[in-house]
Amino acid sequence: MKKRIGILTSGGDCPGLNCVIRAVVSHATLTFNWEIVGIPYATQGLLERQTIPLNLHGWDLRGIDPLINMGGTILGSINKGDTLASAKEILASYEALGLDALIAVGGDGSLKIIHELSNLGNWNLVAIPKTIDNDVALTERSIGFDTAVNTVVDAINRLTFTAASHDRVMIVEVMGRTAGHLALHSGIAGGADVILIPEVPYTIKGLCNHLSQLRDQWRRKFAIVVVAEGATPCLEDLDNVASCSSAKCGRGQYIADQIASCSSNLIDTRVSVLGHIQRGGIPSALDRLTATVFGKTAVDLIAQEKYDQMLAWQNGQAVAVPIQDALDKSPSLVEPNSDLVQIAHSLGIYVGEN
Amino acid sequence: MKKRIGILTSGGDCPGLNCVIRAVVSHATLTFNWEIVGIPYATQGLLERQTIPLNLHGWDLRGIDPLINMGGTILGSINKGDTLASAKEILASYEALGLDALIAVGGDGSLKIIHELSNLGNWNLVAIPKTIDNDVALTERSIGFDTAVNTVVDAINRLTFTAASHDRVMIVEVMGRTAGHLALHSGIAGGADVILIPEVPYTIKGLCNHLSQLRDQWRRKFAIVVVAEGATPCLEDLDNVASCSSAKCGRGQYIADQIASCSSNLIDTRVSVLGHIQRGGIPSALDRLTATVFGKTAVDLIAQEKYDQMLAWQNGQAVAVPIQDALDKSPSLVEPNSDLVQIAHSLGIYVGEN
Amino acid sequence: MKKRIGILTSGGDCPGLNCVIRAVVSHATLTFNWEIVGIPYATQGLLERQTIPLNLHGWDLRGIDPLINMGGTILGSINKGDTLASAKEILASYEALGLDALIAVGGDGSLKIIHELSNLGNWNLVAIPKTIDNDVALTERSIGFDTAVNTVVDAINRLTFTAASHDRVMIVEVMGRTAGHLALHSGIAGGADVILIPEVPYTIKGLCNHLSQLRDQWRRKFAIVVVAEGATPCLEDLDNVASCSSAKCGRGQYIADQIASCSSNLIDTRVSVLGHIQRGGIPSALDRLTATVFGKTAVDLIAQEKYDQMLAWQNGQAVAVPIQDALDKSPSLVEPNSDLVQIAHSLGIYVGEN
Amino acid sequence: MKKRIGILTSGGDCPGLNCVIRAVVSHATLTFNWEIVGIPYATQGLLERQTIPLNLHGWDLRGIDPLINMGGTILGSINKGDTLASAKEILASYEALGLDALIAVGGDGSLKIIHELSNLGNWNLVAIPKTIDNDVALTERSIGFDTAVNTVVDAINRLTFTAASHDRVMIVEVMGRTAGHLALHSGIAGGADVILIPEVPYTIKGLCNHLSQLRDQWRRKFAIVVVAEGATPCLEDLDNVASCSSAKCGRGQYIADQIASCSSNLIDTRVSVLGHIQRGGIPSALDRLTATVFGKTAVDLIAQEKYDQMLAWQNGQAVAVPIQDALDKSPSLVEPNSDLVQIAHSLGIYVGEN
Repeated sequence: MKKRIGILTSGGDCPGLNCVIRAVVSHATLTFNWEIVGIPYATQGLLERQTIPLNLHGWDLRGIDPLINMGGTILGSINKGDTLASAKEILASYEALGLDALIAVGGDGSLKIIHELSNLGNWNLVAIPKTIDNDVALTERSIGFDTAVNTVVDAINRLTFTAASHDRVMIVEVMGRTAGHLALHSGIAGGADVILIPEVPYTIKGLCNHLSQLRDQWRRKFAIVVVAEGATPCLEDLDNVASCSSAKCGRGQYIADQIASCSSNLIDTRVSVLGHIQRGGIPSALDRLTATVFGKTAVDLIAQEKYDQMLAWQNGQAVAVPIQDALDKSPSLVEPNSDLVQIAHSLGIYVGEN
Repeated sequence: MKKRIGILTSGGDCPGLNCVIRAVVSHATLTFNWEIVGIPYATQGLLERQTIPLNLHGWDLRGIDPLINMGGTILGSINKGDTLASAKEILASYEALGLDALIAVGGDGSLKIIHELSNLGNWNLVAIPKTIDNDVALTERSIGFDTAVNTVVDAINRLTFTAASHDRVMIVEVMGRTAGHLALHSGIAGGADVILIPEVPYTIKGLCNHLSQLRDQWRRKFAIVVVAEGATPCLEDLDNVASCSSAKCGRGQYIADQIASCSSNLIDTRVSVLGHIQRGGIPSALDRLTATVFGKTAVDLIAQEKYDQMLAWQNGQAVAVPIQDALDKSPSLVEPNSDLVQIAHSLGIYVGEN
Repeated sequence: MKKRIGILTSGGDCPGLNCVIRAVVSHATLTFNWEIVGIPYATQGLLERQTIPLNLHGWDLRGIDPLINMGGTILGSINKGDTLASAKEILASYEALGLDALIAVGGDGSLKIIHELSNLGNWNLVAIPKTIDNDVALTERSIGFDTAVNTVVDAINRLTFTAASHDRVMIVEVMGRTAGHLALHSGIAGGADVILIPEVPYTIKGLCNHLSQLRDQWRRKFAIVVVAEGATPCLEDLDNVASCSSAKCGRGQYIADQIASCSSNLIDTRVSVLGHIQRGGIPSALDRLTATVFGKTAVDLIAQEKYDQMLAWQNGQAVAVPIQDALDKSPSLVEPNSDLVQIAHSLGIYVGEN
Repeated sequence: MKKRIGILTSGGDCPGLNCVIRAVVSHATLTFNWEIVGIPYATQGLLERQTIPLNLHGWDLRGIDPLINMGGTILGSINKGDTLASAKEILASYEALGLDALIAVGGDGSLKIIHELSNLGNWNLVAIPKTIDNDVALTERSIGFDTAVNTVVDAINRLTFTAASHDRVMIVEVMGRTAGHLALHSGIAGGADVILIPEVPYTIKGLCNHLSQLRDQWRRKFAIVVVAEGATPCLEDLDNVASCSSAKCGRGQYIADQIASCSSNLIDTRVSVLGHIQRGGIPSALDRLTATVFGKTAVDLIAQEKYDQMLAWQNGQAVAVPIQDALDKSPSLVEPNSDLVQIAHSLGIYVGEN
């Protein structure tokens, strides 16, 4: 039976989404001769019953398929809104659009909403995890994470040389919401001296001692401090979260202020808030491959009519896990005693008081 | 006569400084058999009479000369302090260190101080311009600018795809102090829709109209706004510079607030403050070549005992100009009717009310 | 007991080797206070009883630890020579140097030799797999492979735009020896139209038909052909391997000649032999992390006196496997019906006659 | 008067061509409201009277203008064929297509042919120089050169670390046809030890002595040799150009053979032929700016009805020069005693016998 499949991308964008779309379109078209339509702006497009026809000639520019090199998503995305309030209408749209199945690419937040919709109605849903926060459970890889780690490592490299030239402490605030994966991976790979993440409590005293030790014992006059945007307040300051006066200024500036204070302004700091460049960039080879494998396998699941599954990377291959199981355990945070935290310690990196 | 030459790097660091050092050491050693010593931390090292011996084997790592690939400066730098108060001691150090000449690599601020010192005493000075702000007069190129422009263009690229995916206006705050060169060059090269620089006044009304026109007339739902850190307040707001409540939040956040206001919060903005990643990175080929040519030519000037000169790039080659002439005209700002501003207009970019 | 540990890198170099060295030195020094010595040029350095002291200040350049950003190996490497003929002398050296254990980083060829030496004598050996060929068995990751895949993908991107501008077929010859992993991964990630690998037989007729179909059915006037250096001769040509007249010209040129022939010179081809740029480059974040985890864990194995093990990545973490087991199954080749080959088919890529 | 302008790209492609097209379309549309048509495949498209409508929405992909980031040319190009034989027909096409003027982007070869056509008929021609060979006379910059230099420097960086790890001499063959600009610029910027270019004769003896000196006097066990594809045969070998047995193997392999011979096979060499990756890549900021300035200024020249001019970069700005003057002096080769050659000498680089 010729199927009509919808695909949408939801939540914050990241590199690799277009590779999923390309793999889905290629495999569904070439192998099964199905029809694939894109749903723009996730559930909003669904609500408005909009579709974008997707085929192998869709974005032709002298025959170049630009999708695999492009960041972002050609389908657009949203990560806001009161989706569930329109649940009935959205479910009716799925019906009205004549979709046989829906492939949803999203992070744990988006997938929760879409999964809830599928529980309310009669969707044939296959989910694909993407997130630069890497906090979707049950999968070793989520699309976008590898590229983001490389982006942050590149920024750390750039900052290291200017830090060393001016004997400065460079503070790099990175994304990740409630999870420290991005900070921890990029900090270790980039050669950071301090990594502060939400999952591990720290003290300003411990941080300042470490910087002093670097300077005095190791004669390293500069340092790189990676701070996750969601890093907890320091232990000394748990009662006084408001101590960072402006929410806009973020955890990076808070840490800079604390270092200035503990060093009597002797330590010269600079704060870089990497912001949305972490969501951009040409996708890394690994993100392209993961996206391609997930996209192709999602089509295979639909062929087998195996729904309510999320693609996951486990033991070197793509497998299907029940969405509910993955979402139940998401967001997946850094274990304070995980291998990577141990490794950070073994490299002499300060990651808090554990 | 075998000379003993000092070299120092001063002011904010940038990619290409180490290429100057390498060229100076190579040419002075191989061609003239002179002795070269590095002065760490600019005038501070001079004051403290510190030197670092520099030779062709200086930073050997399996024989790799890492200097040409490294950002920053192996000599260290400072860009603060009341140097002239110690003028007498610094001049005495030059004498005491037995230097026959001094090569100073710096921006217009640093070169002014060092030139003033040379006026007070008896220095044989050759200056080399470096600045990511590109505001040293009389030279078409300064070391570090080309790399910084490429860094900002890369960041704009990354932001463009995520902007397009979410129909957002991305605001990118770039360095440049009082000059708009970095914003203007990178904005044009990167495909920005708006470029705000210190030299051209703008209105919030004009800016918002342009964004509306993009959206309504050209059906472009996202936009890229490049804002120089020193962009003037808008014309409507000249009396009220304090409207950006926190100095720490910068011009980018100010523009975001204004856009939110003029669009009744309909336009979704995100601010990226690129910060010190603009000073980092592997030097571009052009910065390496300029640095190498300047370094080599500085040694030639010393061989000719032609002092108080600054190297400048003019008409496709390195020439010497009197330092005083260059500094008199620095900082060199963007002409509001310059070719590049005209070009921005011709591409449909909003650059203010001229 | 304070141990004295040797570390050597053997076989063709790749990005990430220095990250292993850094992790080993950091963990062994900071956690255990052991002494680490580098053995230059693998078994040759051992034979000559040379050591390089390694400590946390070893390659200081203004305090920057350049090791994590550098490709290559500061210890040097060799991948030739009749090592086993000197087995007795090499084993005596291990004794004479007072080593308590040896960490050997190498590919399957090097590790085989070193393991054989350890069988002959009394070495306490821990092995770490590195190879851009990705052909070491029992481990999902080997150091260097991820960077090499990204390097090839970058080259394919560059070639795609020039191919499309001139309606050419670009043939990219990549490394991998007897294995097709590098070609297969980079070809899929890079958007290749044809991928020829040693493990899957192909016919010139099939290849030419595919190119015709691209041109006629899909109106794609250019194509990207990725050829592994060890790709088998085509099925039609099995008796006549010498048909590529010059061994120096390689498989890429052979394929170009065949396409010229089958298309009566109508198809314009260009051959790029990527060569040793595939072994270079700044290590990717993933290779840095894998190298760091392997290096740290190797030290832990020595602390547990667990020898004759190879580090392997399995199920999302580093584990130890008996070297013999890994080598028995190496080189690990591409399964002709593996998931990735299926995925290539599903994207419409020609990978031969299966 | 509303004009109808044609634009074509001719000869080997390079990064930056699409930036010219974007600037031409933007300025002609926004400022003058003219009509712009692309002519595909240079004179072949003209002969076949094909046009591609170009406007500000032409290649829209979620509103992203991908042209500035893309290498290659969306118009396609050819660099072969007996164009002048069809001169009459091509001139008739220009007439038939109703073109008021033609903007031709090409290297010296292509521009010669197109200029000759304009001499034969009644074309209103404006030329824009592009070439990774940098051999168009009277202009300090040609589009594509800066990106190509950066590409080669990146390749040299990659090769340097693997060369150093294995004590090898890496030979890098780069493009440039009869000119050595690309080899000379990238060799100096990349830290090469030897640069062989067509304009400077060399001897194998001089080359081998230099490599020996590096090894013995400077204790550098590896070396980087950059060879222009058009490097002359060595002086000892002028009578025997055929000594490189196979034309396909190129100058790089020839040099490798000579080094093997002069060192009695003691020096281990590897040859990398960079090939067409030198024509690819994301355009550098400088190439984007030059392309944009040239494109905008070409439109201005047409508005002034100033024809038979080529855009050139002189003294920091774009100027118009008579095409004939530029072509008369093209190809512009490296002066054997130019500043850059002197600089190479002063860095201790072997560039032949001058």
